[in-house]
Amino acid sequence: MPMIDYRNLKIAILGGGNVGANVANLLLTHRDELEARVGAGLEVVGVAVRDPAAERTPAIPAELLTTDAHALVTGADIVVELIGGIEPARTLVLEALRAGADVITANKALLATHGEELFEEAAQVGAQLHYEAAVAAAIPIIRPLRESLAGDRIRRILGIVNGSTNFILDKMDTEGWTTEEAMRVASELGYLEADPTLDVEGYDAAQKAAILAGLAFHTRVPVDAVHREGITKVTSDDIAAAKAAGYVVKLLAIAERVRSPLGGEGIVTRVHPALVPREHPLAAVHGGHNAVFVEAEFAGSLMFYGAGAGGVQTASAVLGDIVSAARRHLAGGPGVAESTSADLPILPFDAVSTRYQIVLEVADVPGVLAQVASAFAEHGVSIEQFQQSAARGEDADPTATLVVVTHEARESALAATVEALNGSPAVRRVASVIRVEGL
Amino acid sequence: MPMIDYRNLKIAILGGGNVGANVANLLLTHRDELEARVGAGLEVVGVAVRDPAAERTPAIPAELLTTDAHALVTGADIVVELIGGIEPARTLVLEALRAGADVITANKALLATHGEELFEEAAQVGAQLHYEAAVAAAIPIIRPLRESLAGDRIRRILGIVNGSTNFILDKMDTEGWTTEEAMRVASELGYLEADPTLDVEGYDAAQKAAILAGLAFHTRVPVDAVHREGITKVTSDDIAAAKAAGYVVKLLAIAERVRSPLGGEGIVTRVHPALVPREHPLAAVHGGHNAVFVEAEFAGSLMFYGAGAGGVQTASAVLGDIVSAARRHLAGGPGVAESTSADLPILPFDAVSTRYQIVLEVADVPGVLAQVASAFAEHGVSIEQFQQSAARGEDADPTATLVVVTHEARESALAATVEALNGSPAVRRVASVIRVEGL
Repeated sequence: MPMIDYRNLKIAILGGGNVGANVANLLLTHRDELEARVGAGLEVVGVAVRDPAAERTPAIPAELLTTDAHALVTGADIVVELIGGIEPARTLVLEALRAGADVITANKALLATHGEELFEEAAQVGAQLHYEAAVAAAIPIIRPLRESLAGDRIRRILGIVNGSTNFILDKMDTEGWTTEEAMRVASELGYLEADPTLDVEGYDAAQKAAILAGLAFHTRVPVDAVHREGITKVTSDDIAAAKAAGYVVKLLAIAERVRSPLGGEGIVTRVHPALVPREHPLAAVHGGHNAVFVEAEFAGSLMFYGAGAGGVQTASAVLGDIVSAARRHLAGGPGVAESTSADLPILPFDAVSTRYQIVLEVADVPGVLAQVASAFAEHGVSIEQFQQSAARGEDADPTATLVVVTHEARESALAATVEALNGSPAVRRVASVIRVEGL
Repeated sequence: MPMIDYRNLKIAILGGGNVGANVANLLLTHRDELEARVGAGLEVVGVAVRDPAAERTPAIPAELLTTDAHALVTGADIVVELIGGIEPARTLVLEALRAGADVITANKALLATHGEELFEEAAQVGAQLHYEAAVAAAIPIIRPLRESLAGDRIRRILGIVNGSTNFILDKMDTEGWTTEEAMRVASELGYLEADPTLDVEGYDAAQKAAILAGLAFHTRVPVDAVHREGITKVTSDDIAAAKAAGYVVKLLAIAERVRSPLGGEGIVTRVHPALVPREHPLAAVHGGHNAVFVEAEFAGSLMFYGAGAGGVQTASAVLGDIVSAARRHLAGGPGVAESTSADLPILPFDAVSTRYQIVLEVADVPGVLAQVASAFAEHGVSIEQFQQSAARGEDADPTATLVVVTHEARESALAATVEALNGSPAVRRVASVIRVEGL
């Protein structure tokens, strides 16, 4: 057996939910192995919970449970915050840092809204603040961005970072389920948050996008600056049309470096459904899986793929942070602060140029194509591809479906085009507008 | 502009080849940005080369070039070893560590053969020794294994870690090229090492496998303990047969935790061609790309994908290590030593159980199937699937092809079966034996 240091590191866990219970259980059942890796004792001094009587899977030994999180934080070497939400998590993390502890958190909402405050406090006291589990659960993405790619220039990140919406879109694509069916099954499987809006309206993905963008571009990105659209407007028709055209619909979290209208570069961060070409590696990310695709100037394209949720999967990332923090705690020397050295301007969503697929229902009469084409041309949006389906409806008043794919265009130009199309007599309805990404 | 620390970190680069020239160039041309990320000056004090007059792309300013690597190492804060090979790289890295420098290396051969000595020296003096570029170039895999997954239990790693052999096998599969054509093009594109044996016989992959296995299992794995088979025996027929059966042939570096015949667990590390099911994420790794698939007890399956070679891509990983090392250098505190805490037994190759595809040419006579089946049964190898192709050859003496896929079997049992098949009167030839992985 390797020698164990005389030191015993005290670990306090805040939160006894699914992730907290798994972290406590793995720390207790794999204690010898983890201690050998660290080279010191790893003692769980307590797990702070709201209701000690609640049933937990896996179970936490009763003698470790406490309702006094504030007392638990005092005297711990490493505090693991798995409560979620803003308060009391924020106050407890700050207390822990001020008391000299290193902190591990999986709390994306807290980091996306109060990251600046926490990182500054950690830098001030020289503590470590790790958060590998906050984005894409068990997939190592924080450390690769923060360290392995720290010398590169990232151009763009495309991430599938919400497992439940990926499950829903994937089942609609591969099994032909309706939105309602897919939502129901996702809910039954426990894939959706208690408030499903957090998933399907893209709030969860937006928090993760803000964290990834900040790391990738060395710039503080507030979650309010993330343009956010959910998947609730995506229909089975959209998915079928995408499939026919060689695309798959994914909810993407996108952070990219773009040319600023004021000169220089800035960043735009956004979450919305997008068409991804079938041959793109992200198209093969099925079910509840997550993946983050990184385009870097020197490294080229990289992808990180794995499970994006789950108690034990998320616990894996938390344990990795605990072992890393414990090793550094023993070695001595302060934590390395977050870098916001680039401090790039955060640009409005309209700074984005991308491609679009627009599905139109039009009157099947002569001249309609010319009308539609000129609406695009007038707003400087160039068309890459036109496809017209057979007309349907009554013979006297037939309706045809037009699918238009554009070249790269600005959001504002596209919005003006859509407005013009809506006012065009030949256009019955703009059925859908979806961005095309990954090209 | 962010404030730059009064400190100036001196960086010495050893080696002015493709990677060295790119690292020097990026450090010089992106100096402001990298200094802002670190928070201190980053000064390239010199690049040690054999021949200062040699032409380099990108060029290195002549005043930085020196032939005296030993002098350059003295007084540097960070030494970047990009010479490759064992000597003088080994001596220079040891000199750098003893002189108090942190060391970055991309030298897989050195780490796989003298890692123990270097890691011990680094631990002794409290220096950092980083090597993200040593495996799979720009793909962050070292840090994820060493830190993000440090609390997990890895069961198995399957890696495509040699780009040139993946290019060759991929072109044979997707374009129907012969081995000779694919080798020739790979060579023309500069994908093969000066001595192509290093690639095609699996030496390069074996070095990387030893490094990955050591990290994943917290155990020192000498490269001599890696079972190694190259791709030279893989024929177009093998690839066509694999394709027909829904597989693709890949050269895999495999490290896995297996049950030891003596009780407990041990590890086996191996490099050989393998059939991978088409639906496995590794099957979609085309051309010169690399990918590492990790199966962990808690995290589940993860994949890391990207460019596996190239001067600027490898430089990305080296720069990430330089920025990380510089940040830690400034923060103070020693480097965190490598963990070999598990020290698992390294088992002989025969401890592996896997599945096999065996292609046999047999006489097309009654009773041959029974003869073949009993050869398998006698050695305890269970057959999952049999497939017999139409007979060919002269009517008087027709030859049929039998493709057999086994259930999991031990190497020794399979070897004994093949020996029995070779001695069987009905079997004309054992045309190929390829392991099936990724199930």
